[in-house]
Amino acid sequence: MSKFWSPGLNGLAPYTPGEQPRQRGLVKLNTNESPFGPSPAVADVLRTWSIEQLRRYPDPDSTALRDALAREHGVRVDNVFVGNGSDEVLAHTFCALLRHDRPVLMPDVTYAFYRTYCALYGIAYKAIPLDSEYRINVCDYEQSCGGVVLANPNAPTGIALARTDIERMLVSHPDQVVVVDEAYVDFGGESAIGLIARYPNLLVVRTFSKSRGLAGIRVGYALGHMALIDGLNRVKNSFDSYPLSSLSVAAAIASLGDADYFAKTVAEIVRLRQLVTEELGRLGMIVLPSSANFLFAAHPACPASRLMAGLRQHGVLVRHFVSPRIENFLRITIGSEADCGALVRALTKVLSDQSG
Amino acid sequence: MSKFWSPGLNGLAPYTPGEQPRQRGLVKLNTNESPFGPSPAVADVLRTWSIEQLRRYPDPDSTALRDALAREHGVRVDNVFVGNGSDEVLAHTFCALLRHDRPVLMPDVTYAFYRTYCALYGIAYKAIPLDSEYRINVCDYEQSCGGVVLANPNAPTGIALARTDIERMLVSHPDQVVVVDEAYVDFGGESAIGLIARYPNLLVVRTFSKSRGLAGIRVGYALGHMALIDGLNRVKNSFDSYPLSSLSVAAAIASLGDADYFAKTVAEIVRLRQLVTEELGRLGMIVLPSSANFLFAAHPACPASRLMAGLRQHGVLVRHFVSPRIENFLRITIGSEADCGALVRALTKVLSDQSG
Repeated sequence: MSKFWSPGLNGLAPYTPGEQPRQRGLVKLNTNESPFGPSPAVADVLRTWSIEQLRRYPDPDSTALRDALAREHGVRVDNVFVGNGSDEVLAHTFCALLRHDRPVLMPDVTYAFYRTYCALYGIAYKAIPLDSEYRINVCDYEQSCGGVVLANPNAPTGIALARTDIERMLVSHPDQVVVVDEAYVDFGGESAIGLIARYPNLLVVRTFSKSRGLAGIRVGYALGHMALIDGLNRVKNSFDSYPLSSLSVAAAIASLGDADYFAKTVAEIVRLRQLVTEELGRLGMIVLPSSANFLFAAHPACPASRLMAGLRQHGVLVRHFVSPRIENFLRITIGSEADCGALVRALTKVLSDQSG
Repeated sequence: MSKFWSPGLNGLAPYTPGEQPRQRGLVKLNTNESPFGPSPAVADVLRTWSIEQLRRYPDPDSTALRDALAREHGVRVDNVFVGNGSDEVLAHTFCALLRHDRPVLMPDVTYAFYRTYCALYGIAYKAIPLDSEYRINVCDYEQSCGGVVLANPNAPTGIALARTDIERMLVSHPDQVVVVDEAYVDFGGESAIGLIARYPNLLVVRTFSKSRGLAGIRVGYALGHMALIDGLNRVKNSFDSYPLSSLSVAAAIASLGDADYFAKTVAEIVRLRQLVTEELGRLGMIVLPSSANFLFAAHPACPASRLMAGLRQHGVLVRHFVSPRIENFLRITIGSEADCGALVRALTKVLSDQSG
């Protein structure tokens, strides 16, 4: 604490992202990055890019990217908001749309950054427990609130919610915004984007960091009714006129143009997820049913902290959240086929060392 | 206004950035961009960049860039904070360091975004009038406050404040943060960076968008005592773990490595500023003494709005702020030698049409 800090700074609870190790050769399955690079179309764009353009500010409205996203998702350009990664989009969402008198509802086990935003903007929240199988029960959300935030599929469980459940939540909260964070939806969830035209209270948040293999460029977006997008723009234009670098915009547009590569790489991750789920089951792990590019898994006899340390000794990084209800789980990203093989071999050794 | 908006959203006063026209062939002197592209070293880095790396998140602490900036400015790495353009750095500064009970002091004529941040974070401010020659008078700031924000050189006047004046302000506000926004300092101001070691209440904010010709990559930074940087990091890590794209970090580091190009392009702008100042004087314009890469100029007989419209008809874009005290001034960026020639020719025509 410093006398120069604004009061309240001490009450913040900054999010801790997964480690980005400098050590080479590690099998990095801790931050849900894609094992595949982005589409080769991104390389073409960057190779032919004239850097002289970088002297100019980007288009403050990112119209070209918003146009491309509108076409991709079958919405109008004024239904699209873009930001510096979905984290910035979510931050502006909490500030612009979720700062009301009543608490925001969110699952007790979900993306931990939601609670961080509440602290940043002074928003009360109420954590609604997942059921005993780590599922969201929509009935539990039928109560007075200032808004709802969900990840679908949920993180770090990987479990998806049906679109009919999302719709039920939209119907029961007609005067509140329901934010559906679809960071992982491309790997098997049902998107709520089709509901935007009918529900002015729905905001869907997306990212280029997972299924598009572009975590390094920091592009996220939100889709929703124009009134919600206008609210986000009021905050964005009070914060930073130009959130996206020109290079990031060009890379994102190039990625959207290569549907085949996108479909192929997503399908490969889904295939590998199935294989790794089976292998972990064989090793005695409990694996939650994942619709994401990661597995959330626990071993009945071996604490997650010990498993994580053992895996690290074998050069495999995974993520462990020391939080109530999930402290015995590990979140394991689906990497390349080689990464998945390395994970299974390392886990086999760690578990046999444990029992030996 | 929408029922879904957070209360207070209507009270925001979003900043309006200068137009980024799609029409080609315009002489664009309205957003203080550099007429020169970035160092060729930036092109080399982007050409040899392996896009496969973009699947990874960037280093959340941007340590490599902060190291390079620490070396550049002779400070320690823990004196350096980086963000998504200096606008994001300033936003976090207002949130982390200027949200106190008493009002923030700032000049009545300065970068308009400062007032926007105050509205965003609910901070009261007090505008201290510039003197009759549009200069900051340090004595006027010797009053109780929650902090001070200045641009040096000031924008849009271009007038620089001596380092001794900054130091006097630091001495008179030992318990408040004094933020010195040095976006334009490379063109002729005296930097306050040398005072950081002695004044724990000094925060200096910088950008790659002006003197480094890299407005498109969105990189800004702040230098100050570790306690101030820690406060900024608490907010940053409650907002977005990875504010800088990997490509932007690489481009910024490459730019810092080419001191010769930097010195040469800055010197050329300073030379052209002198020439254009003389030409505008010959045309009867009043030009404030500029230490920046722009001129702030008025004509005694021709309203600025009419001059701006006339220049636009001749394909030259400049900036006009419809604000008290400065509504008769135009802010004119120093462009390339060809741009400057086009400006002077267009202005000559507009003024002769006026008087004819």
